[in-house]
Amino acid sequence: MNSSGLAWVTPQGGTLSCVANGSGLKINMSTLDAVLSRIDQDLDHSLDRLFALLRIPSISTDSAYADHCRAAAAYLAADLAALGFDTSVRDTPGHPIIVAHSPKGPPSHVLFYGHYDVQPVDPLELWQSPPFEPRVATLADGRKAIVARGACDDKGQLMTFVEACRAWKAVTGSLPVSITMLIEGEEECGSKHLFGFVRDNAAELCADLALICDTGMWDPDTPTVTTSLRGLLYEEVKLRCADRDLHSGLFGGAAQNPIRQLARVIAALHDDRGRITIPGFYDGVRDLPEDIKAELAGLGLTAEQFLGSVGLKIPAGEVDRLLIEQISTRPTCDVNGIIGGYTGEGSKTVIPAEASAKISFRLVGDQDPHRISNAFRAFVRARLPEDCTAEFINHAAAPAIQLPLDTPVLGKTRAALATEWGRRAVAVGSGGSIPIVGDFRQVLDMDSLLVGFALDDDRVHSPNEKYDLRSFHKGIRSWARILPELAS
Amino acid sequence: MNSSGLAWVTPQGGTLSCVANGSGLKINMSTLDAVLSRIDQDLDHSLDRLFALLRIPSISTDSAYADHCRAAAAYLAADLAALGFDTSVRDTPGHPIIVAHSPKGPPSHVLFYGHYDVQPVDPLELWQSPPFEPRVATLADGRKAIVARGACDDKGQLMTFVEACRAWKAVTGSLPVSITMLIEGEEECGSKHLFGFVRDNAAELCADLALICDTGMWDPDTPTVTTSLRGLLYEEVKLRCADRDLHSGLFGGAAQNPIRQLARVIAALHDDRGRITIPGFYDGVRDLPEDIKAELAGLGLTAEQFLGSVGLKIPAGEVDRLLIEQISTRPTCDVNGIIGGYTGEGSKTVIPAEASAKISFRLVGDQDPHRISNAFRAFVRARLPEDCTAEFINHAAAPAIQLPLDTPVLGKTRAALATEWGRRAVAVGSGGSIPIVGDFRQVLDMDSLLVGFALDDDRVHSPNEKYDLRSFHKGIRSWARILPELAS
Repeated sequence: MNSSGLAWVTPQGGTLSCVANGSGLKINMSTLDAVLSRIDQDLDHSLDRLFALLRIPSISTDSAYADHCRAAAAYLAADLAALGFDTSVRDTPGHPIIVAHSPKGPPSHVLFYGHYDVQPVDPLELWQSPPFEPRVATLADGRKAIVARGACDDKGQLMTFVEACRAWKAVTGSLPVSITMLIEGEEECGSKHLFGFVRDNAAELCADLALICDTGMWDPDTPTVTTSLRGLLYEEVKLRCADRDLHSGLFGGAAQNPIRQLARVIAALHDDRGRITIPGFYDGVRDLPEDIKAELAGLGLTAEQFLGSVGLKIPAGEVDRLLIEQISTRPTCDVNGIIGGYTGEGSKTVIPAEASAKISFRLVGDQDPHRISNAFRAFVRARLPEDCTAEFINHAAAPAIQLPLDTPVLGKTRAALATEWGRRAVAVGSGGSIPIVGDFRQVLDMDSLLVGFALDDDRVHSPNEKYDLRSFHKGIRSWARILPELAS
Repeated sequence: MNSSGLAWVTPQGGTLSCVANGSGLKINMSTLDAVLSRIDQDLDHSLDRLFALLRIPSISTDSAYADHCRAAAAYLAADLAALGFDTSVRDTPGHPIIVAHSPKGPPSHVLFYGHYDVQPVDPLELWQSPPFEPRVATLADGRKAIVARGACDDKGQLMTFVEACRAWKAVTGSLPVSITMLIEGEEECGSKHLFGFVRDNAAELCADLALICDTGMWDPDTPTVTTSLRGLLYEEVKLRCADRDLHSGLFGGAAQNPIRQLARVIAALHDDRGRITIPGFYDGVRDLPEDIKAELAGLGLTAEQFLGSVGLKIPAGEVDRLLIEQISTRPTCDVNGIIGGYTGEGSKTVIPAEASAKISFRLVGDQDPHRISNAFRAFVRARLPEDCTAEFINHAAAPAIQLPLDTPVLGKTRAALATEWGRRAVAVGSGGSIPIVGDFRQVLDMDSLLVGFALDDDRVHSPNEKYDLRSFHKGIRSWARILPELAS
């Protein structure tokens, strides 16, 4: 099955041959073989180190877990320092950011970005084992998988890169390229303080290229470079009516109900054809060129394939768009959470004083998150009766991004991946968002190379999140192969 | 200010003179004076007994409080037994029901109904003192008030009746009428097991008249008999889409979102003029006779009076109805609670698998709650796309009720109240619901006389619920006056 949201195969994707591209190779193959061998032999220890990180419940969006976030940062910083990185844990008004520089070495310089924070675990009762007690489970089809919150997103993925560095260091005493690590703790709650941090420390963080390991594979056998990401606007709206909760018998019929008003707003966000109705929302969204659209259609992604695995049948987006467009090249609007009134067991005859919803938008092309934030807020306010007021919080505002398809590192990376996996590597667009990528482009004038090993069934953000042991192992080996390719 | 939801002044209400009606008086006035004097002297002890009951957190809708509900029942049962009642605590599949019979005495026989359970206390952070640590507070205008969850609804109110019985017993050694007490523990969550209990024990519970102390006063100086109540249909609906929570970046645009669908359903429940759109919903709703409507208009209830005290300005019901109709003689639909997706601090990019809402309807006239339940469920299902299923729970289904306005006890009770309060007692309709009243009518062929002392600002069902000390004291005195009037 196709990897969730990895969808836009570029024209170049179909023609690359499966050979290692030696143009940037600065070390001989026996050195690489030794590094790969070292990775294979050290896998159990790599796993131990990942498990230690997974045991720390670094849930960033809930301030009750702030100390755990700090502990996760400290753990990683100590590990990087032990690898010879000049490492610091930088305070922010939120969770700390780790910056680590490898000793001065080759002129080629990359910035690796990852995040140590994880999503909340609710609903906890659906986990088959405690989310912060990692274990290796055997799946029904025989695959081995690491199960824990963060096993994939992003602790497992970021550790593939750290372990690749460790193996190079162990075998050769140095790294094939100069590396700066930037590891934050607020990716799952909007990366609020990272943006200012990057701006304030631009000189220190500037490099030739950013590397990110937070994306997935097209399918379990096909390595993948992600070349575009949707942007994200995430808003929270709270509606207030009466100044207290009211008895629905005594006030029912006369008192304004904020849940009713919130429902009216949400219901109005889409028209009957699945289009988002906020004025100006589609400004900056371009239609795909016909040839690309034909290629997308040619991939033959079906609702049965993509939605069937999660119990759905019918694509819910714009009715005149392909499913593959809906999840990768078209913008979206989703309600991520809603609450108001009595939500416990049984009944309570209350008209609540307030109700709130978390509403997010995935953005594409040149959609401007700040303009859309303003338009959304005006859209809500225009629909409220006099007895209902709205208050807003912004949790994220990042534009979409696109890696130039002609950059040489793309070809070299795909070749390295192809060698490791024995299968042509594809270059695709993703429906997800990694907001910092836009900032790397704008503030540091730097492209990002996104290589990840997540699979469709990893249950990222859901109970029982997992990461295939094969993803972890071959992920480390993949980075070990990619690193020398970047040393040109 | 008018009492919340007490609205329908009957034609007779305007003509009653403020004199005690002695027709049913079986005891001389000096005995009554002695009883009233005893009540005044014993008030501190009455308060102690109420406080002991208020300290028990008997929240019925949350099963975590089941033991506390049982403790509240045991406390009351012991108190009634000490008063000479033949008392039993009867188990049900839910919380227990207390039945207590006074010793065989006068042929006139009343059934007093009350409830020992209370509403949940959330949001707890808005309470100025712990909800189950009762205290007497002095309000800004100098009034003294008992503050606690249940201070008014219904522990304070039901204890006015118990304390009146206690005073009669202390002074005369007996009661003016034979009394059966029926005190349940599930009124705040739909009285699910009371209905079957009444049916199964009809012979034991049958009496000439039911008395209920769970309603309010027209204003702080005007005693009130409530002669009609709206019915209540309370439904919970849960919508399910995917079989798990999904990442909104990867699935956003293609996966159906249950919050969006729930919002569409809720938004469709009212039209632009505030009318409820469920087919057949208004069957059985009659327009008021012109003379009654003119009287209602003559009361001059304004939005400023009624809604101003809770921070609202504009009546939210049917635009072509008076405010006083909206809250008493017209049916309503309110969303009492909604929840879905991530509702914690910060953000989570999730498309939830499910979302649910608690939706209730206040009914009038001959609206049939069971037919409307079916129509509501069909209304919801008709609006769902194929990838969205609905599951329903019914929490309450009771028709509206009306006390015959020509029953003699109404006049006698109003006269007794007028004497105690020095002000004509009004007979009004209430917007609230007490489902068991319909069953007393249907199963026991018995009318209910509703007299209560709650005030507009008692914050029933809200944080900082209170009951004026004057309501408690004069409430006890009122019942002491009413009891002998029922002995005809």
